[in-house]
Amino acid sequence: MRMYDIIMKKRNGGELSTEEINFFVEGYTKGEIPDYQVSALMMAVYFQKMTEQETLALTMAMADSGDTLDLSEIQGIKVDKHSTGGVGDKTSLALAPMAAACGIPVAKMSGRGLGHTGGTIDKLESFPGFTTALTRRQFVENVNRIGVAIMGQTADLAPADKKLYALRDVTATVDNMSLIASSIMSKKLAAGADAIVLDVKTGSGAFMKKEQDARALAQEMVKIGKNARRRTIAVISDMDQPLGYAVGNALEVKEAIETLQGKGPADFVELCLTLGSRMLMAGGKADTVQEAKERLRKVIADGSALKKLAEFVEAQGGNADAVYNMGLLPAARIVRPIPAPVSGYINHITCDEVGICSLILGGGRETKESAIDLSVGLVLCKKSGDYVEAGEPLAMLHANDETRAEEAANRYLKACSIADTPRERTDFIRGILE
Amino acid sequence: MRMYDIIMKKRNGGELSTEEINFFVEGYTKGEIPDYQVSALMMAVYFQKMTEQETLALTMAMADSGDTLDLSEIQGIKVDKHSTGGVGDKTSLALAPMAAACGIPVAKMSGRGLGHTGGTIDKLESFPGFTTALTRRQFVENVNRIGVAIMGQTADLAPADKKLYALRDVTATVDNMSLIASSIMSKKLAAGADAIVLDVKTGSGAFMKKEQDARALAQEMVKIGKNARRRTIAVISDMDQPLGYAVGNALEVKEAIETLQGKGPADFVELCLTLGSRMLMAGGKADTVQEAKERLRKVIADGSALKKLAEFVEAQGGNADAVYNMGLLPAARIVRPIPAPVSGYINHITCDEVGICSLILGGGRETKESAIDLSVGLVLCKKSGDYVEAGEPLAMLHANDETRAEEAANRYLKACSIADTPRERTDFIRGILE
Repeated sequence: MRMYDIIMKKRNGGELSTEEINFFVEGYTKGEIPDYQVSALMMAVYFQKMTEQETLALTMAMADSGDTLDLSEIQGIKVDKHSTGGVGDKTSLALAPMAAACGIPVAKMSGRGLGHTGGTIDKLESFPGFTTALTRRQFVENVNRIGVAIMGQTADLAPADKKLYALRDVTATVDNMSLIASSIMSKKLAAGADAIVLDVKTGSGAFMKKEQDARALAQEMVKIGKNARRRTIAVISDMDQPLGYAVGNALEVKEAIETLQGKGPADFVELCLTLGSRMLMAGGKADTVQEAKERLRKVIADGSALKKLAEFVEAQGGNADAVYNMGLLPAARIVRPIPAPVSGYINHITCDEVGICSLILGGGRETKESAIDLSVGLVLCKKSGDYVEAGEPLAMLHANDETRAEEAANRYLKACSIADTPRERTDFIRGILE
Repeated sequence: MRMYDIIMKKRNGGELSTEEINFFVEGYTKGEIPDYQVSALMMAVYFQKMTEQETLALTMAMADSGDTLDLSEIQGIKVDKHSTGGVGDKTSLALAPMAAACGIPVAKMSGRGLGHTGGTIDKLESFPGFTTALTRRQFVENVNRIGVAIMGQTADLAPADKKLYALRDVTATVDNMSLIASSIMSKKLAAGADAIVLDVKTGSGAFMKKEQDARALAQEMVKIGKNARRRTIAVISDMDQPLGYAVGNALEVKEAIETLQGKGPADFVELCLTLGSRMLMAGGKADTVQEAKERLRKVIADGSALKKLAEFVEAQGGNADAVYNMGLLPAARIVRPIPAPVSGYINHITCDEVGICSLILGGGRETKESAIDLSVGLVLCKKSGDYVEAGEPLAMLHANDETRAEEAANRYLKACSIADTPRERTDFIRGILE
């Protein structure tokens, strides 16, 4: 078998066999096939697409390219939740304790990630002392004992995906649904969950700006999951404005705690109930969506989800008192409003610009080595469709530096447009595929 | 400027600017832009094509990427002839002395090439003592004194093309007219001729199997030449069967000499007159095709073209007596017929298979290091459309090894089909573009 023939076949619109895909993924991972042949193949895939069979084969080959997690020592059906990412996305912080409180074992590998705010691990580090440096044994024991554990990505999961993604990133070959879907799913499959609930975001703050693209990606991932014999459900949700009100690490932790106290923002609560209900059903803890949502509402109302968060934080070395006393979480020195320049209805909040405001304040990483200021960020006061009087705050800035605060405020004003008439409301949940 | 943006622009169907193309060619030649980005760009070019302006810019950037030959010390209008290559293509051997005898200065850089038979230099080495290891000074002096010189490719001509072609060759990105045309033309432009006559072959022995592809390539090259302000003419000629009758180094030299003696095969004579007449017109030595062809016929009839060949061979250290006594050229030990298995009309001779017969006999190079047996090859007795009786020779094999002769004979029989009715004749010259 020759890589040249594989490139030529795809270039000419042919379907690659599983053997051919395995040959290319294994050869590339081992360094036997050079980058320049793989990038040519990726560009040919960009133009010729991949079939369902090819996409599955690529996903499986990448999932099998390194370590795979064996979660068989954890009791019950392991359900993994994955978000394609957005601004103000603190879903795991609330949903992991909610699901655990309902009896779903949550055994999550998480990354720090590069972006506007930190990843889930960064956010959790707002709890003083919290660590994700667990041994595999501690990880398994914690899940079996309290139902939830989050571990830093230490294992060599799907190294083929890592290498391929880095190459695609510099050769303009990222934008292909099969390749994006197989990249995400290869890591999920290697991480060993029995079922996968996907949160695919769409809008100005999402990787997929257009809803039709988000839907196509969701379909692609659900197909892969089913073909790989894992129950897979995808929820398409709005990311045209930040999720909830808080953007920034400790600020998002606070909003997650408030949500577990029953005081969460409507969109965020809706997302947690929608995703959570599918997790419960996939994990055999509920038969209907209605029943699942009732269980989830109950663990909020009776405080057991909040208690689960405290147990989880404590089990990983964090100060669990902060769950009940948010004054113990990092707080910024400067808190000031961004006043509305005119009266009117909030028309559009360009979502990734809000993320950049948080980055400017110091809440995200520009490079892998950047340190994060956990205390800074923004808390929106008005969201799309809301009415605001001139001078009323659009958002509250949390900063530790006046110059940065000024820059972020100006940027926020440009990102937020105000109109005379209210914009038509759209559904927050755009669809559910299973 | 970033290579990533250039790839993305081409991928999305945009037209690259001259600055962008220069950036990429210069960066790649210097090793500052990696192979994997360039191969992705080449695959994007394969799908999105290049415009006339882009193709010109690429050609010029590659032509300027290394040394360029300054032929200004040579008097007169220098006209270069280039063939896209085929089986039995001994055109330069006859045409260079013919053109020189008509007053066109022929200053040619030639390669050895990998292929079924050797390149022009290999063929010329059939003259004992002949060398192409001339200094630049000797080269220029020879052209000024006797009108013709051929030099091995010593200068670093168009290194960007060399690097890019090697990459395209292993990434399935060769087949694009703009890229093929710019590769050929960049070397021609760097080699410094004032005018270029191109012989674009089509058929089973050519790089371009289909006539429409040959025509497209010819058009592409003529456009580049004109845009680069060099008079450029392309002749499309048949390569569906070998050119003339002889295939093999010394055998082709003999056929070229016979042609200069006025005894050449009809197709080969037609090709020499067609290409030669355009060379004379481009070089200002004739006003009409008719006038040019008369001059060319005259230098054959009066023996001056043959004398020019002898002068040329002698000036480069070869034994010029061999021009008048072909017994001095290398000859094979075994000469035997390949008899026709049945009677009938020669229907088709798969041309590249005939080339492989020559390679089997030892007449070509399989790798750069292979030694060539100059004496071996085939001389066809019957060509497409000719009638043959069973047992009559289809071709004569010239070999130095019985086993190889047997293998070549069997291969030739498979390559040559015989039918009951004669095949319709097609024109040998398929078109002239200028």
